[in-house]
Amino acid sequence: MKHALNVTREKDFAAWYQAVIAEADLAEDSGVRGCMVMRPWGYGIWERIQRLLDDRIRAAGYDNCYFPLFIPLSYFEKEAEHVEGFAKEMAVVTHHRLVGDGKGGLMPDPAAKLEEPLVVRPTSETVIGTAFSRWVQSWRDLPVQINQWANIVRWEMRTRMFLRTAEFLWQEGHAAYASAEQAREETLKALEMYRSFAEDCVALPVIAGEKPENERFPGAVATYSIEAMMQDGKALQAGTSHFLGTNFASAQNIRFQNSQGEQELANTISWGMSTRMIGGLIMVHGDDDGLRVPPRVAPWQVVIVPMLRETDEDAAILDYCRSLAGELTALSAFGEPVRALVDTKATKASAKRWGWVKKGAPVIVEVGPRDVASGNVAVLRRDRLYGEGGKLATGFLPRGEFVGQVAGLIEEIQAALHGEARARLEANIDRGVSDFAGLEAFFSEKAQFPGWVEVQWSRPTGAALDGVVERLKALKLTIRNTPMDAAAVDGTCIFTGEPAVERILIGRSY
Amino acid sequence: MKHALNVTREKDFAAWYQAVIAEADLAEDSGVRGCMVMRPWGYGIWERIQRLLDDRIRAAGYDNCYFPLFIPLSYFEKEAEHVEGFAKEMAVVTHHRLVGDGKGGLMPDPAAKLEEPLVVRPTSETVIGTAFSRWVQSWRDLPVQINQWANIVRWEMRTRMFLRTAEFLWQEGHAAYASAEQAREETLKALEMYRSFAEDCVALPVIAGEKPENERFPGAVATYSIEAMMQDGKALQAGTSHFLGTNFASAQNIRFQNSQGEQELANTISWGMSTRMIGGLIMVHGDDDGLRVPPRVAPWQVVIVPMLRETDEDAAILDYCRSLAGELTALSAFGEPVRALVDTKATKASAKRWGWVKKGAPVIVEVGPRDVASGNVAVLRRDRLYGEGGKLATGFLPRGEFVGQVAGLIEEIQAALHGEARARLEANIDRGVSDFAGLEAFFSEKAQFPGWVEVQWSRPTGAALDGVVERLKALKLTIRNTPMDAAAVDGTCIFTGEPAVERILIGRSY
Repeated sequence: MKHALNVTREKDFAAWYQAVIAEADLAEDSGVRGCMVMRPWGYGIWERIQRLLDDRIRAAGYDNCYFPLFIPLSYFEKEAEHVEGFAKEMAVVTHHRLVGDGKGGLMPDPAAKLEEPLVVRPTSETVIGTAFSRWVQSWRDLPVQINQWANIVRWEMRTRMFLRTAEFLWQEGHAAYASAEQAREETLKALEMYRSFAEDCVALPVIAGEKPENERFPGAVATYSIEAMMQDGKALQAGTSHFLGTNFASAQNIRFQNSQGEQELANTISWGMSTRMIGGLIMVHGDDDGLRVPPRVAPWQVVIVPMLRETDEDAAILDYCRSLAGELTALSAFGEPVRALVDTKATKASAKRWGWVKKGAPVIVEVGPRDVASGNVAVLRRDRLYGEGGKLATGFLPRGEFVGQVAGLIEEIQAALHGEARARLEANIDRGVSDFAGLEAFFSEKAQFPGWVEVQWSRPTGAALDGVVERLKALKLTIRNTPMDAAAVDGTCIFTGEPAVERILIGRSY
Repeated sequence: MKHALNVTREKDFAAWYQAVIAEADLAEDSGVRGCMVMRPWGYGIWERIQRLLDDRIRAAGYDNCYFPLFIPLSYFEKEAEHVEGFAKEMAVVTHHRLVGDGKGGLMPDPAAKLEEPLVVRPTSETVIGTAFSRWVQSWRDLPVQINQWANIVRWEMRTRMFLRTAEFLWQEGHAAYASAEQAREETLKALEMYRSFAEDCVALPVIAGEKPENERFPGAVATYSIEAMMQDGKALQAGTSHFLGTNFASAQNIRFQNSQGEQELANTISWGMSTRMIGGLIMVHGDDDGLRVPPRVAPWQVVIVPMLRETDEDAAILDYCRSLAGELTALSAFGEPVRALVDTKATKASAKRWGWVKKGAPVIVEVGPRDVASGNVAVLRRDRLYGEGGKLATGFLPRGEFVGQVAGLIEEIQAALHGEARARLEANIDRGVSDFAGLEAFFSEKAQFPGWVEVQWSRPTGAALDGVVERLKALKLTIRNTPMDAAAVDGTCIFTGEPAVERILIGRSY
C-alpha cells in the first residue's frame, strides 16, 4: 500500500520522524545551530497546548508573571548542586556591543565586556527564588504560586527538533509554601495536572511516577515525571514536577516569620512542560501518512477544501464552503467553538487534501460542483484514512447530516486516538521479568519494539545505585520512574536480590 | 485632598510613574541590569493586550510562528544600514559553557568559545528574512504574512520600566509581497490596526503618521508610527510599521519567479508593538490614586471585596460574594465574559479596597454583613473615585440592579477613560506656530505641560534635515510624525521659509 510519506515508521523511525516534521510543516532548521523555526502548524499546536494548559494552571491558583531572560553568574554560584547539574550547557553573554572588525565584518566590542557575564536562563529557579525572597516576609505571604511561559536555552551537543533543541519554549511553575508537607502535596498536584492534561488534551497516555535519585533535577529532593511510550517503544519524559525542599530557599534566603513569630525557611517546588510535548505527540499519533493531531490541540479541526477549477462554478463552491464553515464554527466541541478553515490557496485540490492529511487535520471535507448541486459533502476522517482494499475511506453524506454529527465526530476522533495509544502502552509494559538475566534476555529479544518492563527493586542509593545505572546503561536502558499506581511488591530486587520495596519502569529513552 | 499615592503627577511626574508601578504591583527591578520582573497585574494587562491584538493579527491573515532567539553575527553583516542602526546595543553570546574559576566561582569556559558569536535578537528581520528566502520561490508563494510574540534585547544604557528596558516583550509582524504598492498598502493597514487597537482597546488616543527620514527604522524606506500624549505633555511612540522596500529582500535574497517567469525581489514590511504600551497606559490613564486600567485590558474588571471579620458571619458573606461573581461572569461586556474576582486574601478589607484602587480595577464592590442582610452592594467606579467634598463616591444599590447595569457600566468606563484622554490630546496640540521663533517661545513658556505643536514644513532631507534636527534638539524637541489626516498646507516651512509641503507634529518625547 502506498502512503503519503516516502519513509515508514517500521523502516526507519528516526527518518520517519524528520519526514513528518518537514511534510506537516511543523518546523524546520533555522540556520542557527540547534535552534529551529516553528512554522504555523507546529506553533499553532503549541498555542493550543498553551491555551488549555494555562487554563488549568490558573484554575490551580497560579498567577502568570515574566522574569528576566538573563541570570547573573553569581546567582548560580549560590546553588552549588544546581549549577553542577547545568554547568555544562549554558549560553553566556559576555559583551553588550558589536563593532566593526576593520575587515568589513563585525565583532564583540572589547570595550563593552560585561563585568559579570550573564547566563541565558536554562531554567529560572535562581532568578525567581530571588524574587520570592523579596515577596515573602510573613506566613501571610504564603503560598506564592507563579507561572511563566518563556524561552529556555540549554546548549545541547546533539539536537533533534522538538525533542532536544538549544532553545525551546516551555512553562515553568514555581511556588513557595510554609510546610514541607504542603509543598510535597502541591508537587504531586502539578504532576496530576500534567497527567490529566496529557491524557485528556493531547490524547497521550502516560505513566506518572517518581524519578530515581540519579535522575533528579539538580538540587531537588524529589523529581516526578510523566512518561509516554513512543511508537518505537522508547520512553519520552513529557513533563516533570520537583519538590525542592528548603534547598533553594536556603541558597536564596526565602524566609518567613511563622505565626509564632519565628523565622522559617520556605519549601519550594517547580514544574515544567515544554515544546518537547509536540515531539511526543508526533511519535505517538503519527502514521505513515504523516501526523494525526488530536482535535483538542489541532489549530483547525475541520479543513474544507473547495475543488476549484478556475471556472464560473468556483464562486458557488466558495460560497458553499464558507457558509458551511460558518455553520461549523457556530457549534461547540469540548466546550469550545469548532475550529473550521476554508483552504482557499491557489493549489490543486488533491494537493491540498494530501497536505492536510500530512498535517493531520482531524476532519477533511472536500466540496466539488456536484456536492454543491446535491447539497452533499465528502468527508475524510484522518484517524481512519483507508477503508477496505486500501482506498481512501471518504464518506459522502448530506451537508445537514454532517453538520449535525461533526461535534460528536470531533470528540470521537479524540477518544479514538487516545484509545489506540492507551492500548499500545498497556500491551507493551511487560511485568514478567523477575531477575537481571531476564531483563537482558527481554531487551535482546525485542530489539525492534522493546516496550518497557515493570520490575521490583530494593531502591538502592549512592554507589549501589550507580552500579545499577551502569548495568542498565550497558543495555542502553534507564529507569523511567516508580509508577504512582503500581501494585504492591511481592518479590525481590532484580539488581540486588534483596526484598523489593517498590516497582519501577525500565526502558530505552529519548 | 489626600490621595493613595504619596507623590502627585504635578509634583514629580517621573517619581509618580515609578510609584504607580510599585503600588499597583505592575513590575519591579529584577536585580538583573536593565531587566524587570513583570508581576501578575502588569503581566495580566500584557496578556489582555496580547489576546486582543492577536485576534486582530489573525483576522488580517497573519500566522503565528516562532523564530530563534539567537542570530549569527554574519546575518547582520549582510544588511549594513540595519546593523549600523542597532550595532550599539546588542547582547552577544560568546561562550556555551561555564566552568569553575578555581576560586570557588564560575567563569565562561575558554574551551567553549563559539566560532561565530550569536546576537540576542534586537529585532528579527534578518533571521525571518532568511526563512522567507527559503519559503518564497514563486509568485504563488506570496504573500507570506507571519507574526511572532517574543522577547527582545537591546542594551539600553538608561532604562526605565516598561518604556526602555534591556529585555522587553513584543510582537513583530513580517510580510513579503510581490509589489511595492501592495507592501506599502499593507504597511498602512498594520498602522491602522495599531491605531484602532490603541483607541478601542487601550483607550489610548493616538496620532498615526509617517516618521521623518531621520527617525526611520534602520534599513526602512518609510516608517510610520502611532504617537500618544502622556499626562506630562510628552509624546510616546506606541507602535511602528515599516515599509522596507527591497532592501532586506536584496540582502537576504528573497526572490520569486513572477507569472511571466522572471525573477523579482520581494517587497517586505515589518511592524511591532511592545510592553512599552503599558508605560503609555500608565501615563495616560493613571491618576494620583494609582493606575486606572481600561476595562477591555483589565485582568479583572470587577473585584469583589468581602468585608470579613473572622466571625460566624464570614461564611455567608463569602457565599454572597461568590454567587455574585458567578452571576457577573455569566454576563458579557465587549463580547467577552465579564471578568470578576472575589478577593479572599487574609488582609483587612480597607487595605484590599485601596490596593485595588491603586491597581486600577475598573469596578470595586464591597460586601459587608449589612449588604448580605439587605441584598445590596457598595460599588466604586475607579474612574470617578471621589464625589463632592472629596469623599469616596461609593454607590449603594440593590444587588440585582447592579448586576443588570454592570455590562453597561464596564463599557461606559472604557468610553469615559478614552473620552478624557482624547479631550486632553486635542486640547494640547497647538496649531498656531508659524515660524521658528514662535516654536521657541511656545516651548519656553509651556515648560510644565508643553503639549505638541503641529507646524508646516518643506520636508528637507539629508544635511538640511540634520540641521533641523539639531535646532530642535537644542530645545529638547523631536519631530513625532506627519499625521495621516492633517489638513492641507497653506503656508511656509517654519525651518526653511520655503513653501510647505506637509504638516508635522513636534514635541518632547520619551
